[in-house]
Amino acid sequence: MVRAAVIGATGYAGAELVRILSGHPHAELTMITSQQHAGSSFSDIYPAMAGIVDLRCQAFSEEAVSEAADVIFAALPHKASMSGVPGLIHRGKKVIDLSADFRFKDPAVYEAWYEEPHQAKDLLKTAVYGLSEIYFNDIQKASLVGNPGCYPTSVLLPLLPLVKATFVDLDNIVADSKSGTSGAGRSPNVATHFCEVNEGLKAYKVAEHRHNPEIDEVLSLFAGRTIHITFTPHLVPMTRGMLTTIYIGLKESVSTQDVASYLNRFFANKPFVRICPPGRFPNSMHVKGTNYCDIGLKVAERTRRLIIVSAIDNLVKGASGQAVQNMNIMFGLPETAGLDQVPFPL
Amino acid sequence: MVRAAVIGATGYAGAELVRILSGHPHAELTMITSQQHAGSSFSDIYPAMAGIVDLRCQAFSEEAVSEAADVIFAALPHKASMSGVPGLIHRGKKVIDLSADFRFKDPAVYEAWYEEPHQAKDLLKTAVYGLSEIYFNDIQKASLVGNPGCYPTSVLLPLLPLVKATFVDLDNIVADSKSGTSGAGRSPNVATHFCEVNEGLKAYKVAEHRHNPEIDEVLSLFAGRTIHITFTPHLVPMTRGMLTTIYIGLKESVSTQDVASYLNRFFANKPFVRICPPGRFPNSMHVKGTNYCDIGLKVAERTRRLIIVSAIDNLVKGASGQAVQNMNIMFGLPETAGLDQVPFPL
Amino acid sequence: MVRAAVIGATGYAGAELVRILSGHPHAELTMITSQQHAGSSFSDIYPAMAGIVDLRCQAFSEEAVSEAADVIFAALPHKASMSGVPGLIHRGKKVIDLSADFRFKDPAVYEAWYEEPHQAKDLLKTAVYGLSEIYFNDIQKASLVGNPGCYPTSVLLPLLPLVKATFVDLDNIVADSKSGTSGAGRSPNVATHFCEVNEGLKAYKVAEHRHNPEIDEVLSLFAGRTIHITFTPHLVPMTRGMLTTIYIGLKESVSTQDVASYLNRFFANKPFVRICPPGRFPNSMHVKGTNYCDIGLKVAERTRRLIIVSAIDNLVKGASGQAVQNMNIMFGLPETAGLDQVPFPL
Amino acid sequence: MVRAAVIGATGYAGAELVRILSGHPHAELTMITSQQHAGSSFSDIYPAMAGIVDLRCQAFSEEAVSEAADVIFAALPHKASMSGVPGLIHRGKKVIDLSADFRFKDPAVYEAWYEEPHQAKDLLKTAVYGLSEIYFNDIQKASLVGNPGCYPTSVLLPLLPLVKATFVDLDNIVADSKSGTSGAGRSPNVATHFCEVNEGLKAYKVAEHRHNPEIDEVLSLFAGRTIHITFTPHLVPMTRGMLTTIYIGLKESVSTQDVASYLNRFFANKPFVRICPPGRFPNSMHVKGTNYCDIGLKVAERTRRLIIVSAIDNLVKGASGQAVQNMNIMFGLPETAGLDQVPFPL
Repeated sequence: MVRAAVIGATGYAGAELVRILSGHPHAELTMITSQQHAGSSFSDIYPAMAGIVDLRCQAFSEEAVSEAADVIFAALPHKASMSGVPGLIHRGKKVIDLSADFRFKDPAVYEAWYEEPHQAKDLLKTAVYGLSEIYFNDIQKASLVGNPGCYPTSVLLPLLPLVKATFVDLDNIVADSKSGTSGAGRSPNVATHFCEVNEGLKAYKVAEHRHNPEIDEVLSLFAGRTIHITFTPHLVPMTRGMLTTIYIGLKESVSTQDVASYLNRFFANKPFVRICPPGRFPNSMHVKGTNYCDIGLKVAERTRRLIIVSAIDNLVKGASGQAVQNMNIMFGLPETAGLDQVPFPL
Repeated sequence: MVRAAVIGATGYAGAELVRILSGHPHAELTMITSQQHAGSSFSDIYPAMAGIVDLRCQAFSEEAVSEAADVIFAALPHKASMSGVPGLIHRGKKVIDLSADFRFKDPAVYEAWYEEPHQAKDLLKTAVYGLSEIYFNDIQKASLVGNPGCYPTSVLLPLLPLVKATFVDLDNIVADSKSGTSGAGRSPNVATHFCEVNEGLKAYKVAEHRHNPEIDEVLSLFAGRTIHITFTPHLVPMTRGMLTTIYIGLKESVSTQDVASYLNRFFANKPFVRICPPGRFPNSMHVKGTNYCDIGLKVAERTRRLIIVSAIDNLVKGASGQAVQNMNIMFGLPETAGLDQVPFPL
Repeated sequence: MVRAAVIGATGYAGAELVRILSGHPHAELTMITSQQHAGSSFSDIYPAMAGIVDLRCQAFSEEAVSEAADVIFAALPHKASMSGVPGLIHRGKKVIDLSADFRFKDPAVYEAWYEEPHQAKDLLKTAVYGLSEIYFNDIQKASLVGNPGCYPTSVLLPLLPLVKATFVDLDNIVADSKSGTSGAGRSPNVATHFCEVNEGLKAYKVAEHRHNPEIDEVLSLFAGRTIHITFTPHLVPMTRGMLTTIYIGLKESVSTQDVASYLNRFFANKPFVRICPPGRFPNSMHVKGTNYCDIGLKVAERTRRLIIVSAIDNLVKGASGQAVQNMNIMFGLPETAGLDQVPFPL
Repeated sequence: MVRAAVIGATGYAGAELVRILSGHPHAELTMITSQQHAGSSFSDIYPAMAGIVDLRCQAFSEEAVSEAADVIFAALPHKASMSGVPGLIHRGKKVIDLSADFRFKDPAVYEAWYEEPHQAKDLLKTAVYGLSEIYFNDIQKASLVGNPGCYPTSVLLPLLPLVKATFVDLDNIVADSKSGTSGAGRSPNVATHFCEVNEGLKAYKVAEHRHNPEIDEVLSLFAGRTIHITFTPHLVPMTRGMLTTIYIGLKESVSTQDVASYLNRFFANKPFVRICPPGRFPNSMHVKGTNYCDIGLKVAERTRRLIIVSAIDNLVKGASGQAVQNMNIMFGLPETAGLDQVPFPL
């Protein structure tokens, strides 16, 4: 059994890690920490878990966590991560960090968008970007994984396999993303108040969301040239789920079937990616609670564009599920261990 | 491995049976039938299940189903069940019926409320009412289980243990139930149209819902005297979940703590019943997707009433989960097999 | 034109007052105050109102408000009201207070439930409880109206006309209320976070909600004897709307039709009360955004209970709409002025 | 008073016409028809309207409707409209048609997308496309208005003013639209069932929605050259509201402020268009129930794109509100008559 700890266990990503790890056949949840709720039982904060995870939240101690766990999931706000993670790495622990602090290769990009000096630039060099299906081999060997953002996961998973295709115009890509409200986290504020979200729909941080440079950097490194895409996030009145519609200019003719076949081959042995049959498009409801990424696509011939729609659960494949998938890869466990949640029909 | 078939697999209760059985460690789903969708793959009807349950729906054949399965779950409309079930029983199969057709001991009550002559009165005598925690011993030996309605489950589970208590006024009980919309089934009609349900709340079938006589009969048999309760169902704009608030007149003084202790003892070894600690009341969200029944309570001294609140997932403990729990009991499997879904924190 | 001011204009009740008053044919909104948002334009806080109410929020000043307005709506938290209202009254202003501070006749009850010494006991004697249809005559002459709580409005409006009927058992009344989330106000906290409300349903403050003594006092004064009812509030995943199901023990036989006729006569000239025809029950959706109270009812003969269901919009008839109705009554305006919102079909 | 009739009054667009016309100061609703509900009172179908519109639905008769009304709103499915409307026009009536039957100038485009031979090609020549702000002058003189689709309204209103700007690349436009479920109409089917919509999000009719050629034709006629845009509709779990995000390639540099100023000038005297101040983007909630179209925008310099977000209520500005606005224009009434609904703060 791999011994796992979750730092920041009472936010939504942390709680979702606790949920997944509590049912994991090869991992044991040995410690959870929470700054705000230290001393409380996890099930006092999340009564759904009464009788299942009654573990008490601890205050964070580098020493205690390192003794208790082989792998540490850090579900902290950015900046907090880069101050806490290095000590754990130096003690020889494996760390999967869900903040933005270890996602960027170029610290200058991080600093420009997160408005903080980076405090652990050395670690950026060895940290692996945890998009499991794409960087599987690197993740196997990694000590530190920077777990991708939810929006980047939904954009990059279908898009990266195509960036080297000759028909793709890399200078003409738009990603229009729609997210459930859990992506905004658990801290209460007017913008996440039920009455301000329910029965409403809005775009936010138009052309200035921090996930845009994350997407751009990964795409650029993968393509070997600079790429900027246009990315707009939207907030949808539902709890979980993310749907991204990607519009890709075509430089050459290509058929829907060709692209579908190509993606099917690319993801042939990847258990969490499902390519929809022709004519079907994903629904975020169909992946709710699961680690799946469903992908549908169509070539619009009149306008010479490839349209791809991807669906994930923002808290699972977009955060905690992918983090556990990365743990599985790092520890040589079956990739789907703990992640075989059967989807709900409704 | 127990071989299981689901008759009527594409309605919501049927689909939920398919979901649960597909992840059951000791059962194998060998056949599914659907009148409306015969010939289609299950995952064509429920794309969430693509790659997980791609089994093809069959038209119903008593012979084929009996050959394929040891236990048959009938998720048919009432009346259809009582015409199909007897043949399966006579072939020596175990049947768990989710309709109302085998819930009543007194066929006259059935006929009065369902406005159909009962076609299998003999079977009513041997059929066992499948409220798992209460009729465990009878279910162990049963060939035919009449699986309880969702509302009756939410009312009876907390109430039955108390009917013999001297402090309870059996002539002064009100159950006010609130259900998510999945309880209305999958057949589309104006009353289940998104825009007619969303942002609305209503009572329906006031003092005339068919689950009222079901509750009354079980209570009366258990108490050894005639009991009628006042029962009102309400429709709530959410997909899953049921909350029932029960108001019980008190003939003697009793404390909240005494009742809580009594229920805790009664359900001591029952893995799916959770009694909330004093001062906490259940939320339907905390049991969503699970087979739990959460129960909270309080004595209102000024008005001499005991108030009990119960929460279940209407499709799980209120239907398909309890049905699988009954299968587990009938076949000597661990009671929680296939039903160990970890609740979602949100 | 009546000149009106709203104190505490940026909470939900305040904003709803601003909405209604901005379209009122005989009132002019001359001043709005907000502690939190002083200096901001109302439409900066509520962009829906851009171009309609761009009035700037002021800090509260008794003198400025008194100069600007003939009538002042106080939409403040309790305790804040009783410190601010007396000065306005002494300056000869009419005040409609939406807090609990002027709803009770007996200051001891207020102090027991609100855990504050009452600072304006003298005013309690002259303050009128603003349940418009019941206390119309008193409201006409009032200087200070204590506007009813949302739950009490939904309970008392159908119930008060019946308390003197011989068939009603005043010692056996249960009110089970369900409210949309806007009733919890605009202050963000975990309990009103979208993800904690959406797809969930819960009872709260069981047998200890502050609206219970408010209901009891009004009922008792009206009946001329002490009455305690059992009252349970529930939180529903929708923004607006309240449905209350009232269970009344019967001491004598009475028919559904008799009760309906009686209520129809009682509310004959009351434009905002609609008694449903026999067999129909109200839906909170049908009164959304309006000042209506819809009422349906049925006698359950088997259990000798009268079941009444009432529906209101908690922010309109349950708060700001009734407050404006009271202003209309106090100033001799048509009772429906500014409140003739046509209901939305969906 | 203009005498108005609504044909097809019990669908959602029809019911919304009834709601608006029932509160119109210069129009009188003299007749409503419904094939399905002939003989029923409107308030039996929509109990929200009890006591407000109790008018009885008639079966359609060209003669009776023509006698009863000066203007007829046809809220019928496509094809039904083009068979019923010509007779009304020939009797000298003004008709505002909410179907697609009179939106296209080129009948071949209509026939290709709606798969029906057009039965009233002559009328297409004189029918005016009812995008009120753009075709105001033509609408004033029109006998027959083809009322725009909801998606086209949300795309064209912000986009048409820009098609002649030199900075716009007309060959690089994407419109990503998200709609509430009421846009799918009232006919029940699995796709509009509460449980299939709630907590889900999907794209549909990708690159093949019938509103795409409608948008393209209007754009092309306005620009004087052929334009095809990429258009994807999405279904959102809310009742009302539509948000469209438009991505426009830039051929020249332009600033956010310049475009905002240009649109502000263009819509200077248009009461229903609100351009958001810089940095603010619309929320569909802010226009719910109103005839507003809110528009926000930003130039994304890194990717040389102009991003515009528009919000409307799909049933009001996207259908029935714009239809009444067109009636106002045709009859020389104030443009906002009957459409001055104050937005709800929540």
